Amino acid sequence: MTRDEAIRRLKSTAGHLNGIVRMLEEDRYCIDVIRQIQAAQAALSRVSETILDGHLHSCVTTAVRGDDPEERERVLREITEVFRQTNKSG
Amino acid sequence: MTRDEAIRRLKSTAGHLNGIVRMLEEDRYCIDVIRQIQAAQAALSRVSETILDGHLHSCVTTAVRGDDPEERERVLREITEVFRQTNKSG
Amino acid sequence: MTRDEAIRRLKSTAGHLNGIVRMLEEDRYCIDVIRQIQAAQAALSRVSETILDGHLHSCVTTAVRGDDPEERERVLREITEVFRQTNKSG
Amino acid sequence: MTRDEAIRRLKSTAGHLNGIVRMLEEDRYCIDVIRQIQAAQAALSRVSETILDGHLHSCVTTAVRGDDPEERERVLREITEVFRQTNKSG
Repeated sequence: MTRDEAIRRLKSTAGHLNGIVRMLEEDRYCIDVIRQIQAAQAALSRVSETILDGHLHSCVTTAVRGDDPEERERVLREITEVFRQTNKSG
Repeated sequence: MTRDEAIRRLKSTAGHLNGIVRMLEEDRYCIDVIRQIQAAQAALSRVSETILDGHLHSCVTTAVRGDDPEERERVLREITEVFRQTNKSG
Repeated sequence: MTRDEAIRRLKSTAGHLNGIVRMLEEDRYCIDVIRQIQAAQAALSRVSETILDGHLHSCVTTAVRGDDPEERERVLREITEVFRQTNKSG
Repeated sequence: MTRDEAIRRLKSTAGHLNGIVRMLEEDRYCIDVIRQIQAAQAALSRVSETILDGHLHSCVTTAVRGDDPEERERVLREITEVFRQTNKSG
């Protein structure tokens, strides 16, 4: 469910980028192009959020409830790393 | 030049997104998918920066050196708006 | 430990902001001021990451390993919300 | 005017950070602390936007309308750099 939704939105965003390519080919106003790129970036953030939410409810929950302390540590560290990267990426 | 470079990178990022779709179809690890999405967002930021740089050296320079105070005000306001949106988007 | 480190860094960033106030009072170059503000924002992101990491290893781990499904759901939803807000804030 | 407003808001945000220090000292819930840090970061972005807007209407306008091509290039490059840093900072 989550996966299908993420796939659908990623395909839609890839189509959006191809539309932005056409804007550039037609010499559309730079600021309008930048705004469309920002909208595509926001759409990608929504996809990441959907995937993270699914991940927390599956892999993370399983690992944290499990008996392997290293595995538990690994999944939690990954969450912090993704959060750190979100602060920097873009 | 700037435009061709931006077009090339946007097409490449659209291809990247289609690769991420395949990762999801193959049930690849969620965190790896999120990292790829963050890389695509960073690539889009590089495109925006290239376009903004071109815009500053063309439209903005022309308007600021020109005689129409409203036009000058408009291009400067757009820069601040794009900056504001950058702080929020993603 | 985590808490003391977070407190120390927050106090340091508050001091940094007061230093930026002095830069403005001395009419320092705008771009230098903006760069200092961006550095203060990055420092705050490091504090959030430290706190999130501590939270994952304490409250989240306890709730996910616990028997209350609502509580488990609540802590996971908060992580997704913080991630979403990170994508937007700034 | 712009400067006084920026100073006022920076002082207010420094006060906000000291309030967050107290939240940590009182062992308040981690997620609430993170949300307050994110609010402080958003407030700092508003200050940067105000300062950038003033900069565009003063130094940038003067340089772009002036006769020194190196100076013109310098102020435009700084705008692109600030935009790039905004994409990364936080």
